[in-house]
Amino acid sequence: MHRFSVRVRYADTDQMGFAYYGHYLRWFEIGRAEMLRSLGRSYRDVETTLGVRLPVLEARCRYHQPARYDDRVTVETGVAELRRASVRFAYRIVREDSGERLAEGYTEHCFMGPGDRPVRPPEALLEMLRAAPAATAGLAP
Amino acid sequence: MHRFSVRVRYADTDQMGFAYYGHYLRWFEIGRAEMLRSLGRSYRDVETTLGVRLPVLEARCRYHQPARYDDRVTVETGVAELRRASVRFAYRIVREDSGERLAEGYTEHCFMGPGDRPVRPPEALLEMLRAAPAATAGLAP
Amino acid sequence: MHRFSVRVRYADTDQMGFAYYGHYLRWFEIGRAEMLRSLGRSYRDVETTLGVRLPVLEARCRYHQPARYDDRVTVETGVAELRRASVRFAYRIVREDSGERLAEGYTEHCFMGPGDRPVRPPEALLEMLRAAPAATAGLAP
Amino acid sequence: MHRFSVRVRYADTDQMGFAYYGHYLRWFEIGRAEMLRSLGRSYRDVETTLGVRLPVLEARCRYHQPARYDDRVTVETGVAELRRASVRFAYRIVREDSGERLAEGYTEHCFMGPGDRPVRPPEALLEMLRAAPAATAGLAP
Repeated sequence: MHRFSVRVRYADTDQMGFAYYGHYLRWFEIGRAEMLRSLGRSYRDVETTLGVRLPVLEARCRYHQPARYDDRVTVETGVAELRRASVRFAYRIVREDSGERLAEGYTEHCFMGPGDRPVRPPEALLEMLRAAPAATAGLAP
Repeated sequence: MHRFSVRVRYADTDQMGFAYYGHYLRWFEIGRAEMLRSLGRSYRDVETTLGVRLPVLEARCRYHQPARYDDRVTVETGVAELRRASVRFAYRIVREDSGERLAEGYTEHCFMGPGDRPVRPPEALLEMLRAAPAATAGLAP
Repeated sequence: MHRFSVRVRYADTDQMGFAYYGHYLRWFEIGRAEMLRSLGRSYRDVETTLGVRLPVLEARCRYHQPARYDDRVTVETGVAELRRASVRFAYRIVREDSGERLAEGYTEHCFMGPGDRPVRPPEALLEMLRAAPAATAGLAP
Repeated sequence: MHRFSVRVRYADTDQMGFAYYGHYLRWFEIGRAEMLRSLGRSYRDVETTLGVRLPVLEARCRYHQPARYDDRVTVETGVAELRRASVRFAYRIVREDSGERLAEGYTEHCFMGPGDRPVRPPEALLEMLRAAPAATAGLAP
């Protein structure tokens, strides 16, 4: 899976001293954006040049161990399933110093064209997604 | 299910013009906090008086229609399953003017005592959760 | 000043146990949106019907006492200065149970028309802003 | 000034297509945390080893040009003023591809010890702050 490193910020913590559970979806976003970039095209470019957006249909996250302030965590991202009208990315969040698995999850997306209508993804996008690292971890629906 | 009304703020939107997908987990948090309050005891009181915290084990959300800036949405919350060591809340997000279902999901929580150790929930908390509105909508795992 | 009540959520807290300092700018946004609504026109309507947006030129906040989880706070909002090309809103954040002043600040905005160009505000907007509650508290630049 | 690079995420944008004004305070937090780290001691370590926290007394930001999705921006951070009981950090946010100045501001902090009481900063912290890069840009109060 593609790997990208982020750090837990004060803004991410809550009064339990853990990263707030909603922030993991932000890390998932970062993971898939950086995975796409590593495949040669940024998500911004997918939106502006290819004219396709990938709104989220479903998100799921399983929390195993808390991430704490200033922890460095790796977001691992892969493509779990690519279908005609949707794609599912899988994620794993790992604490870098200990290698401990903190969370795993997935997001499922459709392809949306101009006028907020579903579209078949352009070939250039499909090629990227087919070339993406496969998800060898993460949660299944 | 318990109902609580929130408004989509500019801070919640993203450049698609929709509420960002991570913010729904904040709405889920608001839904369960206000449902507990309606049962006679705030979550703050559960933490400070009963000495129990409910960290999230899993969160899942299915997005049906986007929420947009300044929309009023109702967060419907109920208890979907109460077990010895965990509780699952289910949620539905509904646009108020149209009654349209925007999203549904659940969160699963364990009971954590002092020293970040799992505990049996105190009877006072169990009574509240048994008296809570049942989840008649929302997603199942 | 116009008054609107919000509650501190878990998502707003950080590991100091306080509301994170960046969230106060969200409360300021809520304060000015609700003040505009009370004057007969929502900010959404200002954007879509009047075709004017009010991007922020400057924001400032002075933090006196921390807001804590589940506190109810009142956001007080007023117009501090209305000029040809800009408007400044002032804010005060007050804890509801104690009446304690938690924070105060201001935001300054310009008027932006189609194509992201500065415009003279339409008369309908000026009338609203002239009729708005004056800022009797808050910070001066 | 110390320089650290961050990227604008979808989560940071709002429906104007710009980074939401509150997120800049998060970037300021990142800037000062990374500046401290570059001086040999993380802010986490300041809290846990030196036993001192630096809550924010005041924050101010002037927005010159909008940051947009996927922009890379540099957060420049320096110490603007170090006094007995407080320290002021100044910041500048610069778009990396164009060198354009997007925003500038400052945050002022006091030193807080155990029991949420103000304390004289320990010598180890003062040495760090004296050795920090001076603020050659940013806003003055």
